[in-house]
Amino acid sequence: MAQHTVSKFSGSLRLRHFSHFLIIAIPLLLFSKPIWWQSRHIFLGPPSFHHLAAHCANVPPISSSEFRQRQIALAHALHSLNASAYIAEPGPSTLFFANVSGSDWRLSERPLLLVVTPRSVDGDITAHVSIVTPAFEATRARHSLPIAADDVVFAEWEEDADPYTVAVSTLAAGSGGDGCVFVDGAVRKFIADGLADAAPKSKVLSAPLVIRQLRERKSATEIDIMRCVNEVTLLAIRSVREHMYIGIRESQVSRMMQSALTSANVVGGGCLVLFGENAALPHGGGTDRILRKTDMALFDCGGSLHGYHSDISRTIALPASTISSDHLKIWYTVHTAQKAASIAARSGAITREVDAAARHLIDKMGYGDYFTHRLGHGIGLEGHEAPYLRGGSDDIIQTGHAFSNEPGIYIEGDVGVRLEDTFYIDNDGSSVFFTEGVGGPAISPWKP
Amino acid sequence: MAQHTVSKFSGSLRLRHFSHFLIIAIPLLLFSKPIWWQSRHIFLGPPSFHHLAAHCANVPPISSSEFRQRQIALAHALHSLNASAYIAEPGPSTLFFANVSGSDWRLSERPLLLVVTPRSVDGDITAHVSIVTPAFEATRARHSLPIAADDVVFAEWEEDADPYTVAVSTLAAGSGGDGCVFVDGAVRKFIADGLADAAPKSKVLSAPLVIRQLRERKSATEIDIMRCVNEVTLLAIRSVREHMYIGIRESQVSRMMQSALTSANVVGGGCLVLFGENAALPHGGGTDRILRKTDMALFDCGGSLHGYHSDISRTIALPASTISSDHLKIWYTVHTAQKAASIAARSGAITREVDAAARHLIDKMGYGDYFTHRLGHGIGLEGHEAPYLRGGSDDIIQTGHAFSNEPGIYIEGDVGVRLEDTFYIDNDGSSVFFTEGVGGPAISPWKP
Repeated sequence: MAQHTVSKFSGSLRLRHFSHFLIIAIPLLLFSKPIWWQSRHIFLGPPSFHHLAAHCANVPPISSSEFRQRQIALAHALHSLNASAYIAEPGPSTLFFANVSGSDWRLSERPLLLVVTPRSVDGDITAHVSIVTPAFEATRARHSLPIAADDVVFAEWEEDADPYTVAVSTLAAGSGGDGCVFVDGAVRKFIADGLADAAPKSKVLSAPLVIRQLRERKSATEIDIMRCVNEVTLLAIRSVREHMYIGIRESQVSRMMQSALTSANVVGGGCLVLFGENAALPHGGGTDRILRKTDMALFDCGGSLHGYHSDISRTIALPASTISSDHLKIWYTVHTAQKAASIAARSGAITREVDAAARHLIDKMGYGDYFTHRLGHGIGLEGHEAPYLRGGSDDIIQTGHAFSNEPGIYIEGDVGVRLEDTFYIDNDGSSVFFTEGVGGPAISPWKP
Repeated sequence: MAQHTVSKFSGSLRLRHFSHFLIIAIPLLLFSKPIWWQSRHIFLGPPSFHHLAAHCANVPPISSSEFRQRQIALAHALHSLNASAYIAEPGPSTLFFANVSGSDWRLSERPLLLVVTPRSVDGDITAHVSIVTPAFEATRARHSLPIAADDVVFAEWEEDADPYTVAVSTLAAGSGGDGCVFVDGAVRKFIADGLADAAPKSKVLSAPLVIRQLRERKSATEIDIMRCVNEVTLLAIRSVREHMYIGIRESQVSRMMQSALTSANVVGGGCLVLFGENAALPHGGGTDRILRKTDMALFDCGGSLHGYHSDISRTIALPASTISSDHLKIWYTVHTAQKAASIAARSGAITREVDAAARHLIDKMGYGDYFTHRLGHGIGLEGHEAPYLRGGSDDIIQTGHAFSNEPGIYIEGDVGVRLEDTFYIDNDGSSVFFTEGVGGPAISPWKP
């Protein structure tokens, strides 16, 4: 009863207070968008990035027939090199040739090896695929490896046998080579030693360029996958930027990026997010800094789709940011360097020349000492893979090659700018950004 | 008011019901311990294993002076082999020689290398330790690597330089060797190739036995650490067994083991827990099976202390279990085989002979086809490391060597038994179980 009376009474009091509140609040809401903008997460919950899910939903993985083509191309290369076999441990190369990744089978002291040998059948060269497996774990190898190959032979080695002798026995019949065995450059030294001991008449060498380029130079299907995962990584950065405000923390943005990349179905997606002078340090300041009005924010993001990686960096400003002319000059210097490298990168060019094109421009603008890393790296089934766009390297760029183009300027205690887009060399021999379909490289700190 | 009345009234009713309850409950409690025993987690919460925390609390890690001794021993070995250097990538060997583990520095395409060279100063051989680091990441290498060495030289390679040339330049002065460079067997092939290209007059070979044995043969300090971590792993299994009951699930026991090993401060501790016929499959049945009265339970547990690993397996029964005589015969066959191997394992014995001692006994009992794996593996900074106790291997066992001794019999669809204790070869040349201080190997399925 008593409560009811008080309530009625205070009703009119509240109404009067509310109109006072509106007189103060409406102009505040109208003139200080940042205040409610900054706190809208409190009212609306964390932002949703589900619109990104559809972007790559229809991009198929590598087909069985493409795996078969890769194996046959490898067999042809081996045959032309007069070699008996190509041997690799689980990792990116076995993922390329047989759909078996390093996480499908973890390396241990017991070798599991992919062996591909060329076979000549009625003058046709075909590929013979074996898995050399510990007998102890043969059941798991046979049933859990997602191997893409017809007629795989599992050659088991017992606990008291030499695995390398078993591996070499898979080559004996029909290769017709001079016994040269090529191994993937990533195999452990003791594996190469074991093979050399088991085949004393053979040379065991790291696979030469013609074999390495089977993986380095991407097919149309691979380019489709890489286009999509790089596009959606850039779209994720742009979407997250829409939810940033002056005063937000690096960790908050990093979490939003994780959520955006997860929504986009990017596997293992993540970002380095660094504000202001933290962006001058390759691994950040470890401070979880707040974004100030005068700061730019650096994103370096990546993840994978069907095993193929993305790698996109942006250095951005917000609508409310006020960036100094010194910092803007740095941004545009990096931007122009990225363009210069993009023009230099074409079929027939030498990798170090592309690095030099960007470096020359940055040097000319007086920032040469602050571009402290190579221009870029190959990208595909590894986030970083050969060939590399760096001084001192003399690989010849060819159609199908895919790279990052990521010049940067880093002035410790002041500012860091990096702009990174990935590109490939198309059939005309010129470089095409994977992100071109969504607008490509940044236009300004405000148009990433 | 009304409620109060009802309450008073039902009070006498409840009292009468309670005495009826006691008449039924007391005999039940007295005669069926398993029922309340099984449900005591509901009343008492998850069991605590905090009593294990103290067990290894006073065991010190490897001291700086022991690291220095290892480096000097390495320098002496290199000098006596007329070699210029020992080179390794971050992993167990760099952890041994310089306190840098594979998780302190993840491998990437940019090599970071530990280089140890012998230097002759006034006739004394000393060790010179360098870290070859990407200049790009030199700050992180200098400040975050927990390297244990005096006067480490950081040799930085710029992005446009060849890392291997920089590595070779650290050897040039004063080694006096014939240029032979020994690499750790685990380095990637492309690293060995790069070194060979940068030092065309040198041979680049995997480190020979005299160097490998520096790590294989454990010091007194290492044995103290390994004794404690193996003891506490066994104590954890015994403690968890006290909380098991017929009807418990594999996953519940596995979680208790995780909790016990965490309480014991065992790093990365975990167990395979398999019941009944699931124990016949090396990786379990994937069924999260319930423990039946006629089942034995197999535990295979390990983790690390100061980098050194434990590895203990037990196949146990509960007080309430009824194990068939066939299964008991298998258990005691494995048990006797473990003893036979333990007697065979002494300084001067050949590794394959120790395996044969256990295998011979299991063969004789008619279970030869069911002992499907090697007898054991070396153990130390790796869970499994060279040398191995297996057929076909002819390493000579020496003082300080440490191994697992783990015979097993696995009959698919029926039963699996493995008993595993780790041991070392003492200064008298005989084998000593690391777990001897806590009772050593199992005595019966009921006394693990």
